[in-house]
Order: sequence, then structure tokens, then C-alpha cells
Amino acid sequence: MSNESTSKSETLLSAIRTPADLRKLDVEQLPQLCSEIREFLITSLSSNPGHFASSMGAVELTVALHYVFDTPYDRLVWDVGHQAYGHKILTGRREAFGGNRKLNGLSGFPNPAESEYDTFSAGHASNSISAALGMSVASKLKGESPRRNVVAIVGDASISGGLAFEGLNNASNTPNNLLIVLNDNDMSIDRNVGALNTYLAHLTTSKRYNDLRYKLYKWLLRHNLLNESSRGAILRFTNSLKSLLTRSKNLFEGLDIRYFGPFDGHDVITLVKVLSEIRDMDGPRILHLSTVKGKGYEPAEKDPAHWHAPGKFNPATGERLTGPTGPDVPPKYQDVFGETLLELAKTNPSIVGITAAMLSGTSVATMQAELPERVFDVGISEGHAVTFAGGLAKDGMLPFVAIYSSFLQRAYDHIIHDVALMHLPVTFCIDRAGLVGEDGATHHGAYDLAYLRTVPGMTVAAGRDARSLRNLMYTAQARKIGPFAIRYPRGSADTADWRHPFEEMPIGKGEKLRDGNAVAVMSIGPVAADVAKAIEISGADAAHYDMIFLKPLDEDILREVASKSCPIITVEDGTVNGGLGSAVAEWMTANGYSVPVRRLGIPDEFIPQGTPAEQHRIAGFDVDSIVSAISEAVSKNSGK
Amino acid sequence: MSNESTSKSETLLSAIRTPADLRKLDVEQLPQLCSEIREFLITSLSSNPGHFASSMGAVELTVALHYVFDTPYDRLVWDVGHQAYGHKILTGRREAFGGNRKLNGLSGFPNPAESEYDTFSAGHASNSISAALGMSVASKLKGESPRRNVVAIVGDASISGGLAFEGLNNASNTPNNLLIVLNDNDMSIDRNVGALNTYLAHLTTSKRYNDLRYKLYKWLLRHNLLNESSRGAILRFTNSLKSLLTRSKNLFEGLDIRYFGPFDGHDVITLVKVLSEIRDMDGPRILHLSTVKGKGYEPAEKDPAHWHAPGKFNPATGERLTGPTGPDVPPKYQDVFGETLLELAKTNPSIVGITAAMLSGTSVATMQAELPERVFDVGISEGHAVTFAGGLAKDGMLPFVAIYSSFLQRAYDHIIHDVALMHLPVTFCIDRAGLVGEDGATHHGAYDLAYLRTVPGMTVAAGRDARSLRNLMYTAQARKIGPFAIRYPRGSADTADWRHPFEEMPIGKGEKLRDGNAVAVMSIGPVAADVAKAIEISGADAAHYDMIFLKPLDEDILREVASKSCPIITVEDGTVNGGLGSAVAEWMTANGYSVPVRRLGIPDEFIPQGTPAEQHRIAGFDVDSIVSAISEAVSKNSGK
Repeated sequence: MSNESTSKSETLLSAIRTPADLRKLDVEQLPQLCSEIREFLITSLSSNPGHFASSMGAVELTVALHYVFDTPYDRLVWDVGHQAYGHKILTGRREAFGGNRKLNGLSGFPNPAESEYDTFSAGHASNSISAALGMSVASKLKGESPRRNVVAIVGDASISGGLAFEGLNNASNTPNNLLIVLNDNDMSIDRNVGALNTYLAHLTTSKRYNDLRYKLYKWLLRHNLLNESSRGAILRFTNSLKSLLTRSKNLFEGLDIRYFGPFDGHDVITLVKVLSEIRDMDGPRILHLSTVKGKGYEPAEKDPAHWHAPGKFNPATGERLTGPTGPDVPPKYQDVFGETLLELAKTNPSIVGITAAMLSGTSVATMQAELPERVFDVGISEGHAVTFAGGLAKDGMLPFVAIYSSFLQRAYDHIIHDVALMHLPVTFCIDRAGLVGEDGATHHGAYDLAYLRTVPGMTVAAGRDARSLRNLMYTAQARKIGPFAIRYPRGSADTADWRHPFEEMPIGKGEKLRDGNAVAVMSIGPVAADVAKAIEISGADAAHYDMIFLKPLDEDILREVASKSCPIITVEDGTVNGGLGSAVAEWMTANGYSVPVRRLGIPDEFIPQGTPAEQHRIAGFDVDSIVSAISEAVSKNSGK
Repeated sequence: MSNESTSKSETLLSAIRTPADLRKLDVEQLPQLCSEIREFLITSLSSNPGHFASSMGAVELTVALHYVFDTPYDRLVWDVGHQAYGHKILTGRREAFGGNRKLNGLSGFPNPAESEYDTFSAGHASNSISAALGMSVASKLKGESPRRNVVAIVGDASISGGLAFEGLNNASNTPNNLLIVLNDNDMSIDRNVGALNTYLAHLTTSKRYNDLRYKLYKWLLRHNLLNESSRGAILRFTNSLKSLLTRSKNLFEGLDIRYFGPFDGHDVITLVKVLSEIRDMDGPRILHLSTVKGKGYEPAEKDPAHWHAPGKFNPATGERLTGPTGPDVPPKYQDVFGETLLELAKTNPSIVGITAAMLSGTSVATMQAELPERVFDVGISEGHAVTFAGGLAKDGMLPFVAIYSSFLQRAYDHIIHDVALMHLPVTFCIDRAGLVGEDGATHHGAYDLAYLRTVPGMTVAAGRDARSLRNLMYTAQARKIGPFAIRYPRGSADTADWRHPFEEMPIGKGEKLRDGNAVAVMSIGPVAADVAKAIEISGADAAHYDMIFLKPLDEDILREVASKSCPIITVEDGTVNGGLGSAVAEWMTANGYSVPVRRLGIPDEFIPQGTPAEQHRIAGFDVDSIVSAISEAVSKNSGK
């Protein structure tokens, strides 16, 4: 970690083109390599921002895994993948790392389309155990030789998700060689919550017993006594050993998974030793490592939550280089939500706030700071967040559930079965709706308009600006008409002047922003601003309607537009398969109007990482694309 | 259970109009009441079929809960609700029970719209803990007095779902009085699987320790020593007591939930005692009961899987009155799937079968019987089933995942993130697609066409008959083009003559079944037969296309239809918000054709229980409704 090592350090890291090169090093050289990787991460991420603290905490673990396992033949499955930058650097992508999270550059997460070392999609938490189990079982079924090892690397926050539990519950069902590495830094992006986390903290204090047991395992291994048939007996023996030494209950062994740990996740030499010893064992195993998020960079170690994705920073001083601030700078949409939630909650005692491990990411933290007893951070468990909200609403509360659009996909069934079926007044505040920029394909909020429109009795809305977001939230709690979804994008709102008195918005009413007869553009959400610009540029006699509500649709507007018999363009920051454009096309054809409807939005493909502007262009609903669509519509129409 | 008691028995049960009447009985009368409830269930369900074995196993538990708790002020939250018939009978619905699962009758599951005693939707497994936690927290936040007790009643299969784990993980986070009753009959609908289940079986053998600890709790209670502040100390004390007596690890106490049990779930007098004693404790508690599925009816006790929902039966002999069988009787669609899967798997060694606790319900059991090492029953964990399939596919296998449409909603995100994003060749075999009849609103497969159409790269298909279902399955494994969804309904296929040689079906090609010029009807799935009948009856000059593929859509057919300039009617057994009709409307308006499109399918509402025929009528796509739509379209068109 010292600066003296920097000059020497270039030589080790720069000689590693693939993990095969890494495996040529002596084990004593690995601490030096780890230092170099850290320096590389600090230098690179200070100017090209990304997920910093998680990857800093996983350096030794990453080096040890590639050193001990025969990657890519052996499979490393990273959970979420915030921690996987070291992995990218060691697997042929060091030179490309300057393009991390950029268009035509590297994905910010492991991505199988990018490298054979990236074995599985890793943007949504808790999937690694299930995926790795599938790979391990596949290898067994195919009878591959040499044996293929499969390793899931999962954080303590991710392992608390229901999907991870389902994976754990199934891990011992079938012959497999699954190794689960639990990278335990006692942190989610925000602080971790839940009983499992308390439990993990307790486990790490049972070191004396775990050490003794580990020595026993090693002795058995040395004497060739560890095989499939002796496994049950040894597990029972070590468990009874445990009851002599500790009162701790090992939940993992309750699930029939052999447990090793906790070990210091920053002692790379020990890690190599331990991994080598347990590598060839049969059956599912879990290796519990204690790590420090941000390890090796003092400012990040001290404040890991803010250093999860710190933006640009001065590597020498640790000063984070934030953008402009002040009263004239528009807030982020999430902060308009967060401050409005607190404001509403202060006057309406029925309101409660719910977040799934995203207190600061959603700005639910603002309400948490003042009304902590009415805020619930349920950890990474979107399904539970929604069903829990259903229970609260059933008995009289007004839950506001703030979840990123992409992650809310996990709770589609819960929205239908545990909320909509009972017409419960749960308000879904859907952050990061639409294309999200640098996080890329796994994180886009592309589907919420379409999948929420399928749900009977659901109100689905999106304001075009901060003020309407605020008024929609006010309306949801004032009207209590059943499930009410309000979506808003990542990034800055339109104006710093948004704290107007609340106004109730009529349900299902849109707004005509501009009249015109040659073409009618209908939009939903903040993309309205781009539509306005495009109309201006095109010079067309275009009408512009902000629909505000996808459901119920404003039929007065639809009738008005239909009566003009001019072509329609719909614009939405969401999939064109089932969203606003589809709803308009359905209504027009169902009511016998013959009007062309051109749907601009996210096409039927996965859009890669890049800036939102680049992604809007690729998707075909940036200002230029809207201008073209308007011009084509007008010229076709006049040519009729 | 003896017949002698029957005559006396009418008097107790028939006097109970609400649980308040039940609470007037002496505790010694409760065994007699339980007998009467069982007799009632046997008599009623033998002629009006329903979920038999689960409710038989929960009789004492149900009586004890209503006896000890002040329902409906106290909340009982039933998980799934297969077990809740006794609850319905005791809460004012005994006389209406003849209408169980019938149109305008009772829902087969707890249904808040039906009774204030039914507190939450209970068709999808594992939601009770989260919902009950919400209710308990709501009551605490509102400061209700007297204290409101909330009880979740969950089976051992349901508690293994990820959502239940998320609920457990959050149960100790916040002040609440949640009591979880674990009704452990060591059975899912099929036999339970997974490590948690093995664990529960082990717990039930630690009776000596649990008994002793329970006596300690009672002593503390008697001496008024059980309060919030002493809770931690007592938990630690009893845990160390445990390590003296047993090697068993209590997973629930690992999650900070106080554990009581196991107790005999059929000893109603003990149940009343235990429930009374733990009723007023603070904090989350779990009460573990061992029960026997089908208890009190010998044929069901011996073969509980087949008696889960046995259909009609002779109560005296236990003979199940099945419908006609034989070589000329068409099989169920699920059996066409099950037998075809085995047939394909025999010739293609890459195929594996996956089911989520529905081995017999999906007929994956057919493959399991012959190729058990390539079949995976993952228990109630639809998300894991899909992500596990993703891992298998990533390393070269061809998973066929068979899940009911309604339950697949739980895996929407996993389909996108863990399969589609990597273009993995996972075949989704979606059973019970469309309106499902007697199970009602919670179980309809109403949304799969719409939500799967949003997923990039997804192929979505439905055959109109057994033969095309079979050929679609063949095509999916032959072509390996990425995720491939094949849906089929509950119930009988069209013909017994379906075992034809496989034929590959061209992707994205529909079929013209009939030519005509006055109206074009496009359908997908077996509803084609009703369309054919309707055209016949209407006498209209109607074309009929079986689209087969929702995605990709057959644009040749669309162009052909558009060129006729006749009105279009779409018919699908799925929501009209985003399915086939929407896709057709989108295409027509996007390509500048002015054609009216009338979408028949499931409207924007929840359709209640009834027969499928009744539900098709309510939804508006039974034969009569299609005839009307055709006539209206033709007359409007000719009147142009």
C-alpha cells in the first residue's frame, strides 16, 4: 500500500495479460501485485468515475481466485459485480479500462459478451449462487474432465436477497462442486440490515472454534480422509465439536453447506493457501471472508457509503470533485422525491417510506433522518418490500415504496398479487426509469410502463418535471385510489424552482402543451422537453400533449387528436412493446380511427452503456430523431 | 372421527356462526368440533371438489387459532390458503360452502373481498410473513389498543420460498408482535425438497430440548419475567441450554426469531394452551407444528399428494371418481408436455427438466421417472428455477423450465436479466396459461403474453392444439435460438391422436386456417377452436389466422390482412393490455394501414372463480362473444 512500491509495481501488473501470467508469479509477489492494482484503480477511477470502494475491498480476493483457479476453464460468477474491476484488469482489459462504462468501451459489470472470463450477467443482486449452481451441475452432467470448479462471489448484502436464499436452499440438493465466497464487508451500498447480517457479524466473533475446525479439515485433507462418503460424518463431528466451544449457530451448515471462515480477506497469502486447500473438495462449500470496503484508500475506508461510486476525485487529497451546487442548481429527481416524501409525511401520519437497500440512492434517507420510525430499509428484497407494503396498506397505512425501475421487475408478481388484487393504496415511486446511462443494459428501467400497464386497477403516471412529480406524489396520498405508480428518471430535474404549493392532479388527465394540426406528438415524462425542442427545430405545425398518465389514458386528448386526422408520434423513455405508443395504437384502432402512430422509445434490444444522450440517440428518441420523425410524418401526411 | 359422533356433532358446528360462538365452547368440546369439521369437509368436498388434504391437516390448528385469538380484530394471514377451508367454515361461510370455487360462490382461497376474516390475498406461496409483518407494524405505528395480534400461518413448503426468507430476515428489524405458525406436514403439493426441509425434519427430532425450554418459558411467564428487556438474555440462556442438550442448530433463532416447538398439530387442547401462553409475548415468534396432510381420512393420509385436490370421491370407500380414461380420451395439455419432454430428452442429452414444486402438476414427473438425474425440482422458488436454468444453459445444457403462468410472474426479472440478456436457450413451458377456472383471480395466467413480449430476443409462441405444442417443443430444442416461451392452458387437449412424428415449425410463421374477406380473425393458442366455431355460426366471410407466434409476429400475414382492408378481430386467452391485439394494432398503425382492430381477451379486471367457460363469457371471448364481434365488424364494415 505504500507509495515506495509504486515504481516497482508497474512491472508486475503490466506483465499480466491473462490470469495465466498471474499464475507464473511467486505467491510472495502477490501482495505487491495487489498494491499495484489498488494504485491502478485509484488513478483510473479518480478521473473516469465508477464503482470504487467495492472493487478496492476485493483486490486480494480477486488475485487469490485467479491464482488458485484455472480461469476461464474454472468459472468465477460475480454477484452484482461492483467488486469486479480487479477481475477485469487481470483478464486482458487493463488497457481498455479507461473506457470503463463508456459507449463502445467496457461494461461496468461482468458481461459475458465482453469476455470469456465474465461468466454471467451481474447487474441485479443475489443471482450468483443459482447461476453458479447451474454451471456446476451442467459440468457434472456433461462429465467434464478435468473437473470444472465453479465459484460464486457474493457480498453480505446480496446474500440476504430471497433469490440467494433459494440458491442456498437448493445448493445441497444435487451433486456439485459449488464454492461460495462470501465477501463480507458488513455494508450494502448503504449500511446492511436484517437478521442475517446480525448473524454474520456474530459468526465472525466465533473465530476460535472456526480456526480449530479448519485445522481439523486440513488434517483430514492431508491424510486423504475427506471424500464424499465421509462428508456427513465429519460435518456431524465438527458440529458437536462446535457445541463444546461456542454457542453460535451456523445457519449455512443448517442448510447443509460446509462452512469455512471467517478469514481476513486482505491477507492474500493466506487466501491462496485456504483456497488451494478447499478447491478440490466435493460438495457445496462457503468461504467467509471479512473485508473492508474501500481498503487501501483511507478516505474510502472512513466513509465507504459515499465512496461506493464517488465520481471524480483528487487521488492525492481524497477530495471528491462534485459538480456545481447552490440554490440555482436543479436538484436530482431523486431529491425532489425525497424532500417531497418528507414534506408529505410530516402532514400525513399514515405515510411510511420503504426502500430496498437504497436509502441514499433513492433519497428515502431524507425522511429517515427526521422520521426514522416510519422508514423501513428492508435490504435487498424488492419482493418483500412490496408485499410488506401491501400488509401495511391493508391495515391503514399509506406506503411509498421507492425502488429503481430495473429492480422493481423482481416484484412484478407481488405488485399484482399482494397489492393490486386488493386495490391497496401503495404508491410506487419508480426511480431510474428509462435509460440510465453508464450502468448500462442490466440497469435500464425500460419495462415498467409496459409491465405496469398490464395490471388491473393500477394508476401509472410520470410527470414531465420536478413540479409535476411533486404534485403526483401529493395526489397519490390525497386520493388513495389504489396502487399508484410514479416514474422518474436518473439525473437532474428541470429547475431549482420546484417547491411550489401542492396541487392535486386530476387522475387520467393529460395536458396540451402546444396546439398544431400537421402532426400530434404525445409524450410521457421529462422527455417532453426534448419533444418541445424538436418541434421548435422542425418548425412544424405540431401539437404536443404531455399525457402524464399512461393509465388511465386521457381519452379526451385521444379524441381531439383523432379528430384532427393527422399522424401521431408517441415518445417515451421506455420499451415500445406495450407502453404509451401501444396504448395509443390500441385506442385508435379499437375506436375505428385511421391514424398512423409512430412509436419512439426503447426498441426491442438491450442498449449498452454510454451517456444517456448517446443512449437516446441509439434508441432513436433524442432530439434529432424526434425532429426527423416529425418531418417524415408531416411530409407523408401532406403527400397523401 | 368415529361415525358415532356424527349425530351429536351437528349441534356444535351448526351453532357456530362466527368465531365468537366458537369461543363460548369449553376447551374440552373442541375435539368434538374438530371431528364435526372433518365430517363436514369430507361430505362437502366429496361432491364439490376442492383442496382436500391440506385443510384436513389444519383443522385443530384452525380451531385453536380462532379460539385463542380475537378474530377478526386479531389478524390471521393464511399462506397459499389451501389449508383455509376450516377457517371459512368457522367464519360465517358454512352454509355458503357448497358454492366453494364456483361463480358467485366462495373463492377457494382466503379473499379479503369476501370476508373481513380473510385478511390478505393467498394464492401465491410465501407471502404471509411479509404481509403479516406489515400489518403488525401498522398496528404498532397506529398505537392501537388493545394490542392487535397478527398471525401468519405458513406451510413448510411455502417457508422455503425466497419471499418468506426475506420476510423472516426482516421480522426482527422493527417492533412487532408477529407470530408465525409453521404448519409442517413435510409435504409440498409434491414432496418437499431443499435443505430447509431436511433441516425442519431434524428440528422435529430435538423434542427433548424443545420441551424443556418451553417449560422454562412458561415458568418465566407465570412469574411475569418475560418482557421486552429480558428477551435477549433469555434467548441467550436458552441457546446455551440447548448446546448442552442437542447438536441441533436453530436457524430461526439465527434470524432472531423466538422458536417454540415442535408440537403435535392435531392435539387441539395442547394447541390452545400453547397459543394462549405465547399469544401476548412481544417480538417475532415462530410456533412449529407437526401435522399430517389429509389427517382423519385414511385414504388421504396414505397418499396425500393425490389427495391434495382429489376431485369428487366416494366418502365411504375413498374411491376417487375420475373422468373417463382410455386411448380415445384426449390427454391434458400438461401430459402432452410431460410425455413430449421425456421423448425429446431421450434423444437429446442436453435437455434437462426443471420444476418449482410442481412435479405432478406440470407432469415433469414423467421425465423424472425415467431420467431422474436430469430433472430438478427446486421447490417453491420460481426465481431460482429460472436463474439456475440460465446457469445450466450458459454451460451448454438445454433447460425446459415448466412453471404455471401465474407463478412465472415471480421470475419476470430473472427471465430478463439471467436469461434474455445473454440470449440463453432456455425454453419456458408455461402451463395454466389464460383463465384457469375454479382457482380464480390469483391463479389466472393472464399476463404472460404481455410481459414476455417486452423482453428483447424472446420468442413467444402458443400452439392451437396438442400436436403444435409438441412441435413447438421440438423446435425450441432443435433451433436453440435463445429464450423460447411456449404457453398452453389448463385442461384437456383437443385430441387423443397427437403422437405424430416431430416437425420443426418455422419461427415467426403463422397459419391461415380459413380464407375470407369481410373480417379477419387472428388468434393465438387453443382458443382457435372457439374462433372456428364462431365463424361457422356467424356465417360470415371471415378469414382466420392462427398466429402461433406472438413474437416474432408473422408480418406476411399482417400484410395480407392489411391489404384486404377488412376489420380485424384478435382473440387471445390473455390480457388485452399488451398482448396479441396490441402487437397487431401497433403494426397496423406503425405501417400506415387504417384498419380497425378489436381486441378480445382478458379485460382490465380480475376475473373471479368459475368454470373456464363462465370466465370466457365474462371476459368476452367465448364463442357467443366472438360471434357478436364478427357480426358487428362485418355490419360496420359493409355500412361504410
